[in-house]
Amino acid sequence: MEGVDYLAGERKKAEFDVESMKIVWAGSRHVLEVSDRISKLVADDPAFRKDDRTMLSRKELFKNTIRKAVYAWKRIVELHLSEEEASRLRFYVDEPAFTDLHWGMFVPAIKGQGTDEQQQKWLPLAYKMQIIGCYAQTELGHGSNVQGLETTATFDPRTDEFVINSPTLTSSKWWPGGLGKVSTHAVVYARLITDGKDHGVHGFIVQLRSLEDHTPLPGITVGDIGMKFGNGAYNTMDNGLLRFDHVRIPRNQMLMRVSQVTREGKYKQSDVPRQLVYGTMVYVRQTIVVDASSALSKAVCIATRYSAVRRQFGSQNGGPETQVIDYKTQQSRLFPLLASAYAFRFVGEWLKWLYTDVTQRLQANDFSTLPEAHACTAGLKSLTTSATADGIEECRKLCGGHGYLCSSGLPELFAVYVPACTYEGDNTVLLLQVARFLMKTVSQLGTGKQPVGTVAYMGRIEHLMQCSSNVQKAEDWLKPNQVMEAFEARAARMSVSCARNLSKYANPEEGFAELSADLVEAAVAHCQLIVVSKFIDKLQQDIPGEGVKRQLEVLCGVYYLYLLHKHQGDFLATRYLNPKQAALANDQLRALYTQVRPNAIALVDAFNYTDHFLGSILGRYDGNVYPKLYEAAWKDPLNETVVPDGYHEYLRPLLKQQLPSARL
Amino acid sequence: MEGVDYLAGERKKAEFDVESMKIVWAGSRHVLEVSDRISKLVADDPAFRKDDRTMLSRKELFKNTIRKAVYAWKRIVELHLSEEEASRLRFYVDEPAFTDLHWGMFVPAIKGQGTDEQQQKWLPLAYKMQIIGCYAQTELGHGSNVQGLETTATFDPRTDEFVINSPTLTSSKWWPGGLGKVSTHAVVYARLITDGKDHGVHGFIVQLRSLEDHTPLPGITVGDIGMKFGNGAYNTMDNGLLRFDHVRIPRNQMLMRVSQVTREGKYKQSDVPRQLVYGTMVYVRQTIVVDASSALSKAVCIATRYSAVRRQFGSQNGGPETQVIDYKTQQSRLFPLLASAYAFRFVGEWLKWLYTDVTQRLQANDFSTLPEAHACTAGLKSLTTSATADGIEECRKLCGGHGYLCSSGLPELFAVYVPACTYEGDNTVLLLQVARFLMKTVSQLGTGKQPVGTVAYMGRIEHLMQCSSNVQKAEDWLKPNQVMEAFEARAARMSVSCARNLSKYANPEEGFAELSADLVEAAVAHCQLIVVSKFIDKLQQDIPGEGVKRQLEVLCGVYYLYLLHKHQGDFLATRYLNPKQAALANDQLRALYTQVRPNAIALVDAFNYTDHFLGSILGRYDGNVYPKLYEAAWKDPLNETVVPDGYHEYLRPLLKQQLPSARL
Repeated sequence: MEGVDYLAGERKKAEFDVESMKIVWAGSRHVLEVSDRISKLVADDPAFRKDDRTMLSRKELFKNTIRKAVYAWKRIVELHLSEEEASRLRFYVDEPAFTDLHWGMFVPAIKGQGTDEQQQKWLPLAYKMQIIGCYAQTELGHGSNVQGLETTATFDPRTDEFVINSPTLTSSKWWPGGLGKVSTHAVVYARLITDGKDHGVHGFIVQLRSLEDHTPLPGITVGDIGMKFGNGAYNTMDNGLLRFDHVRIPRNQMLMRVSQVTREGKYKQSDVPRQLVYGTMVYVRQTIVVDASSALSKAVCIATRYSAVRRQFGSQNGGPETQVIDYKTQQSRLFPLLASAYAFRFVGEWLKWLYTDVTQRLQANDFSTLPEAHACTAGLKSLTTSATADGIEECRKLCGGHGYLCSSGLPELFAVYVPACTYEGDNTVLLLQVARFLMKTVSQLGTGKQPVGTVAYMGRIEHLMQCSSNVQKAEDWLKPNQVMEAFEARAARMSVSCARNLSKYANPEEGFAELSADLVEAAVAHCQLIVVSKFIDKLQQDIPGEGVKRQLEVLCGVYYLYLLHKHQGDFLATRYLNPKQAALANDQLRALYTQVRPNAIALVDAFNYTDHFLGSILGRYDGNVYPKLYEAAWKDPLNETVVPDGYHEYLRPLLKQQLPSARL
Repeated sequence: MEGVDYLAGERKKAEFDVESMKIVWAGSRHVLEVSDRISKLVADDPAFRKDDRTMLSRKELFKNTIRKAVYAWKRIVELHLSEEEASRLRFYVDEPAFTDLHWGMFVPAIKGQGTDEQQQKWLPLAYKMQIIGCYAQTELGHGSNVQGLETTATFDPRTDEFVINSPTLTSSKWWPGGLGKVSTHAVVYARLITDGKDHGVHGFIVQLRSLEDHTPLPGITVGDIGMKFGNGAYNTMDNGLLRFDHVRIPRNQMLMRVSQVTREGKYKQSDVPRQLVYGTMVYVRQTIVVDASSALSKAVCIATRYSAVRRQFGSQNGGPETQVIDYKTQQSRLFPLLASAYAFRFVGEWLKWLYTDVTQRLQANDFSTLPEAHACTAGLKSLTTSATADGIEECRKLCGGHGYLCSSGLPELFAVYVPACTYEGDNTVLLLQVARFLMKTVSQLGTGKQPVGTVAYMGRIEHLMQCSSNVQKAEDWLKPNQVMEAFEARAARMSVSCARNLSKYANPEEGFAELSADLVEAAVAHCQLIVVSKFIDKLQQDIPGEGVKRQLEVLCGVYYLYLLHKHQGDFLATRYLNPKQAALANDQLRALYTQVRPNAIALVDAFNYTDHFLGSILGRYDGNVYPKLYEAAWKDPLNETVVPDGYHEYLRPLLKQQLPSARL
């Protein structure tokens, strides 16, 4: 029935104040207020409807996304929304669109790499969307390795222009979002060539399409790269291809904040430190970590609510079957993901602080923490996006067969999320960067250079190599110091072990290549330690609201004990734990699941997601799943007619045994 | 360039005879010949084109599938194909269709559960496809738990009919493939009620649609349940919903081989043993295991070939970059999946033998091996389908960004494969069945009842509980007896440990529920042992062809050492291995990767897949990836026009700052 809350009984079980937890999840009362207001504004506006998305053809889908993105902008202007509110609105519209790249990549690239004059010229146009920009870096044959890009920008001193050219097929720009059909401009990355010399990859502002009729400018071939994973998902985006046939742009469209080409064609570095780009990288990766917690929390919210609605087996004396959330197998897969969503939220919050800290240091010309900050954000990007992609799919499986229906929201959520494992640094490549930093840190131990920040624990290497766990009973695993030492010892020992094995190779690079799979495992151990430690740090803060801190302690325990059990091989192989202590961790983990159970629904309610944003019938706030699934089924295009297209041409001749004369 | 084999250099590296390996993969020279001939027949017929599949709307897609399925049948009849050839043809058409359910579920259900008279009446109609049938078991509120189905079939002695009814919304049939728009008939599972008594779930043949005009018969509501994961994938199938409003069918349409209802409404069991259904279950699950190896091998073939084509980083002195297949991180993710594809192939082959053995025993009224065969097939279905689903997605990630394009074939392969983790028994539910069997086996040790088949090792429990590994150097891990003992000891100890923990609970069922996550881990350990042992058994056979056996030995080593490393926590926690021995296993694994490398392309060529069947530009046999990706992009519907739909309505007013007057 409409209006009935089928999960009301579940909500009554909560042992904490949900409204206070909402503030904790949002980060502040202010953010919660803005998020709540904007998400409802989007949910209540039928123009932002998205339940038909998976049923549209590519062209219908794409046209619809253009409409929504432009309408969203119109509302932003009409309602005089702040930058924060506008960004929230785009987030809750929940549909990848060209505006993501315009605001998220094009504008920041000009701000970060453009001179003051360039900013004055281009930013006002971009802010009003008189031009629409994208970020054209990757090429058909070149993804992760930016230094391998082939597109050239050759300076022609006769005309004071750069000639942008695609010398090979593999140099075609490939993947940039917003490029295929929409953008009028792009920041294009190309090898700068002056006087026959290659100065490496630089950014250039290039106009792609006429501002009069939107046709591509001479010398430019541009189009969409085709269908991607999922029904709607990223097919709302015109990821594009782009080829240049000697396209000329004025010299002042090279982004010249860091390096310049003079009128004479001389290449110069400015005194702006190159390290500034790392600051941007820290910023972008911080947002990716926060996005991971958002995506994972959506999936967990859907799976948790539906696990309370769904019943299977266990009926006694003809009574109702057991709610699947009561099964320990379900809990042992679902609750660690719930805990992970919170863990990623808090580490994302900490990364915001890290970004501020790095920015302030950069402004003071202090580059000392950059390598550590860079390694840490690379690792956390990798760890959280991989765990989130896997976690969404696990949530889908936890919903049984119905999770396979698009109306569950989970297939789309997975398909739209997984590129995060590849973009902004392939996750394995990033972990190798972390490993390289760890090996350097280990090699410098004892040289007097103290490791800082997230590798500070390496400073206690002698203790960490020798200590062993004091855990004697299951409850000992609730003590933060026991846990921290375990994760620190594991990470330190895996790094040291890799360093020792590396030292056996005459050629260090060869050793690094040969042992890279082990190095990746050491990097993962280090990154998991960071997430665990930031969760534990969070609990040292004052957290208001009845029972809220207690719930977070339970979730924190679930998070680290789940990791400890999953990776018990590491803890045992490094001899920090004995098998008995590992088993006690598992016993304690099981006990914590029981404590999560009554609070599970309230813990996902604390995300404060509207049904519109969740986009899932299984995850409906009111739990009224089955009637709504049934209702939604009838909207499929196949149900427009009782007898399907193809019956008269194919099925009827088959059934009537008249195939030889049928037109097939 | 067309006609050039860009992977020829890779193919020359092979150290074994590929043609002989093709026979090993196919299972026999005969199967290879049939597969080769039929796959080329499909690939060469433009009617079976599938590269446009992801770009079609649901209705176009579905109509196209009906056309292909009917055309396939026409060809089967015209060419007088044998049953084996027809089944291969449907396999290589590679598109889920109503015919899968007709031949795979409807016909077998009548054969297995129908009386001789019922078979004589219905099978000829089905064989000629004068009727099309599906298998209507699961309901909106009931999946795994068949005993919880709500649909009723009430015998009415006045008219000698059953009245089929859907008493609740949740009793709506939901998911059956072929039901939504195509099937004329269904085997419907419903609670049999005679004289007010509920006799549990039985099967009934019910006509759904008119054979004249295909409209649903009175009392029947039927339709499609809507979009599913992926673009094409299972959206070619009309998974359906079905409600009955007191639909009457003659008494003789209850499938009466095992139990009957007499004219008087008396319920009777026949003397046909009920255990026969388990025989069918063994058969179905065996096909699922073989399908897992097919799906995984497709993904591995694509990722392996593209890893040899793709280059990233490592350019020295301006030379070409390194092929990504040369990176140990890539090898350590890809080669275990290659080895898994072969491992699943061989365990699937063994399951075929097991099915024959079980069938012969059943015919001789010997039910002694049934519980073991049932547990073993349940476990192998779970293990292989989970590993395959994860493996396909891993292969997609191993292709970098381009793996996200539908033209890579991988998104579709994933989306079409993942339901295998849920259908025919949810994978976690199945592992709990295995665990239950293991606990029973442990409890009977020492009672004189010798464990047989895949649990025979439990008969040596005393030795397995006490022994420890003799491995002293990396090469020791190549000795089959060392490996077998390790996997047996691990599995046995995990089972015994669970049994001991269970014995602490006064209520065994409560203990089983509480410890179910640990029980699942013990079941996985047992199932992995089966796969490893069948791979090792395979190597004891005579395997002709130069170097073929050697390659399989290497792959077998990769498979078990990968498992050993991944689960080293189990081996260490049960104290069978010490950390040094676990590290030696990892060293040996790394050495084996180096041995796989030169043979990798030939090992995937041995699958003998046509480019049509693979459906992947990244996996093309000739490695001509980039020009073909570029070519394919232009076929996207968005590229039909230079200026996209929506420009004039939305984008132009935005760019021209005329939004207030735009119609949005």
